[in-house]
Amino acid sequence: MVHDEKVADYIHENQGRFVKEIVRLASQPSVSARKEGISECAVIVKSMIEEIGGTTRVLQLPGAAPLVYGELKSSRSPKTVLFYNHYDVQPEVPLELWKSPPFKPEVRDGRLYGRGVSDDKGELVSRLKLIEAYVKVNGEPPCNVKFCFEGEEEVGSPHLEEYINKNAELFKSDAVIWEYGKIGSDGTPVVGLGVKGMIYLELTVRSLSQDAHSMYAAALPSAVWRLTRLLALIKDPHERILIPGWYDRVKDLAEDELKLLEEQPSEAQELLKTYGSKEFAAGMPLAQAKKSLVARPTANIAGIWAGYTGPGSKTVLPAEAHCKMDFRLVPDQDPAELTAKLLAYLKANGYGDVEVAFETSEPAARTSYKSDLAQAAIKAAKEVFQKDPAIEISSAGTGPLYVFTRRYGVAGLDIGISPVDSALHSPNENIRLDFFEKGMLWLGETVENYLAK
Amino acid sequence: MVHDEKVADYIHENQGRFVKEIVRLASQPSVSARKEGISECAVIVKSMIEEIGGTTRVLQLPGAAPLVYGELKSSRSPKTVLFYNHYDVQPEVPLELWKSPPFKPEVRDGRLYGRGVSDDKGELVSRLKLIEAYVKVNGEPPCNVKFCFEGEEEVGSPHLEEYINKNAELFKSDAVIWEYGKIGSDGTPVVGLGVKGMIYLELTVRSLSQDAHSMYAAALPSAVWRLTRLLALIKDPHERILIPGWYDRVKDLAEDELKLLEEQPSEAQELLKTYGSKEFAAGMPLAQAKKSLVARPTANIAGIWAGYTGPGSKTVLPAEAHCKMDFRLVPDQDPAELTAKLLAYLKANGYGDVEVAFETSEPAARTSYKSDLAQAAIKAAKEVFQKDPAIEISSAGTGPLYVFTRRYGVAGLDIGISPVDSALHSPNENIRLDFFEKGMLWLGETVENYLAK
Repeated sequence: MVHDEKVADYIHENQGRFVKEIVRLASQPSVSARKEGISECAVIVKSMIEEIGGTTRVLQLPGAAPLVYGELKSSRSPKTVLFYNHYDVQPEVPLELWKSPPFKPEVRDGRLYGRGVSDDKGELVSRLKLIEAYVKVNGEPPCNVKFCFEGEEEVGSPHLEEYINKNAELFKSDAVIWEYGKIGSDGTPVVGLGVKGMIYLELTVRSLSQDAHSMYAAALPSAVWRLTRLLALIKDPHERILIPGWYDRVKDLAEDELKLLEEQPSEAQELLKTYGSKEFAAGMPLAQAKKSLVARPTANIAGIWAGYTGPGSKTVLPAEAHCKMDFRLVPDQDPAELTAKLLAYLKANGYGDVEVAFETSEPAARTSYKSDLAQAAIKAAKEVFQKDPAIEISSAGTGPLYVFTRRYGVAGLDIGISPVDSALHSPNENIRLDFFEKGMLWLGETVENYLAK
Repeated sequence: MVHDEKVADYIHENQGRFVKEIVRLASQPSVSARKEGISECAVIVKSMIEEIGGTTRVLQLPGAAPLVYGELKSSRSPKTVLFYNHYDVQPEVPLELWKSPPFKPEVRDGRLYGRGVSDDKGELVSRLKLIEAYVKVNGEPPCNVKFCFEGEEEVGSPHLEEYINKNAELFKSDAVIWEYGKIGSDGTPVVGLGVKGMIYLELTVRSLSQDAHSMYAAALPSAVWRLTRLLALIKDPHERILIPGWYDRVKDLAEDELKLLEEQPSEAQELLKTYGSKEFAAGMPLAQAKKSLVARPTANIAGIWAGYTGPGSKTVLPAEAHCKMDFRLVPDQDPAELTAKLLAYLKANGYGDVEVAFETSEPAARTSYKSDLAQAAIKAAKEVFQKDPAIEISSAGTGPLYVFTRRYGVAGLDIGISPVDSALHSPNENIRLDFFEKGMLWLGETVENYLAK
């Protein structure tokens, strides 16, 4: 039951070729954390836009990854839909847990495995090939289309806002389709209406000018013990962040949103299965886990290291201890304000000398489920999947959606092709090939429904 | 004022050659933690014994580093002195902090720099070359001499006890000169009368079957936070170990030992300078730091790691968190008993599932300062250095001295050639060349005084 059966047929007939395009793109490593393969990957992405008839511009800020812009005009509608995606990927470590090489994508049992096949190269290809289908079948897309493909999303999009600010007309649009969308194991598509914000930082505690023999731990201070005590001040065992004022601007969900959350399935239970955990953090009940994923701030330790971490034993008192943390934020929480609160709290507790290096700082963004765009996606989901979609008031994840939605005052949402167990950011990242096709149809129908409003 | 001026002259005249012998030995990497270069280094050590006229036997237990035994007989005394040293070294990481390559020893400003030049290859060469001097000058050593050179000290001597048990007659001796001795910056030699024991272990906390995207930290448990909470249960901010019963067998020093400790200079103050710390752990006063180094148990985090530790940011919720710990023990503390207490404590606090892998487990050992051997070393220090030595009731460090002193009921002590700021186990490990010569004389005088008793 889609608007354009011929487009649907084209998409079906060309699935094999589309998957090869994902393989083409995912075979090029593009690890932004290591600045590896980024410009090479930008070249491929640019070609891919041109191969479907788009015009391109490669924007380049000093020290930044290239931002690949593309557009296709249409006589069918005055409206413009912008597709935001990223061509960079997370580091592939730990390599030993991959069943096939991360940058040699491989199909096994109806799934394609490889770093980035879901996040975000598979999603990116789904957008491009949807527009290709319209161009091949109808000679043009259903409306004006803009592509914004960046190469630094996985390191917190440090230059995206500057790219947009400097090229404000270029990225103007009426609606934004965000990078990523989930489909549950039972085939329930998820309409994602927002993202959390994030502060990502690295803490360094120094206690000595050099590592010492650990026998001196009897008398000399330890950077590692000090770091563990600092961390205990940041979050309690009940998952409550202890930094004063951290929750000041955290609003509870509105009545109708709470009702929606209660009615909706959640990825929470699948998470326990996928990640082999018997219970949620701090033993929280399912309802709290659901709410926490959507609407609560987090404080996560993404990495910690100090001293000797090799095989066997080394008796050392480490001079320094490090950790990387990400704090997810909800709407109205202001990263700059929270950063100041964190630094003041560290100082007040005797940790004013601890080095805090900030990597990322971005606010949350949410679109109402009542908006035209959201309603278009909900309707499209019913048409394509023959079932009600799940509605995710906000993703648990982060992205710079605010850069577009705030500036242009438009709606933005997440819909796409990735299974909820796609192991994104983890070894054996994958997509389901059946969902890839359905997700493309859903994308197309969402745009058509939106244009028909 | 040494017994044998000709020996002293020989030692003085051959300093250049002796230092070259340290360079020869320290140029061969022999990192037991990585099982790297061990057998190659054993071959060199064996040759070095033979080159001074000793006979050798290389003992080999399955899976162990070779133990190189050497001996020289003497008609001058029925007594036998055993020199225990080790030819393995600590890992050289972090490599970037070395000013010259760790395995290419280099002389700068009167010091020799390189991994192992102090701990323990410089010390080992000082013993060998002292005996060479006696052999060259007098045709034989002053008494029967045995060398026990092992290759696994830096990983906790896991096979030494078995080597000694299986070859009990071979290692029988009347006195033991232990591996290491310190000389203060002002030229005060230190007579070391014992070592602490140690339990070395690795903790592994697992919370998930695989790493997850850190957005899921809103709902899934974190192995890293759990490890930091576990660590807070092990030691409080006042340096008190919280495991019930840990101090049950810890005896305070006797009256005369306390008096000795009070009178003696301590390395404690030099530690603050060497390691650039303004204060001792938990702000303890100097007197407590001195006592702690000698006679208090410790709990140290030698290494900690989890999640992403590379450059930039990775938003990951780590499935596992690890740490390596060393617990130093004082006399009468029983490693097996404490291990059981630790495991019971973890279980009682909900950490029964945490994996605990033990690397090392050895008790402390101490020799009385009133023993013949200790008095011989104290007298020798006055003769060679023209000043009272410092007397260290126990080292803050660990070694398997108990293996010899318990079995044979004999005294053992630590005297040697290393400056207190030798940066052992750290980058830029070094010895002072002037102390190397004086330390050799001191060793010789100690043996002569002991034989004259």
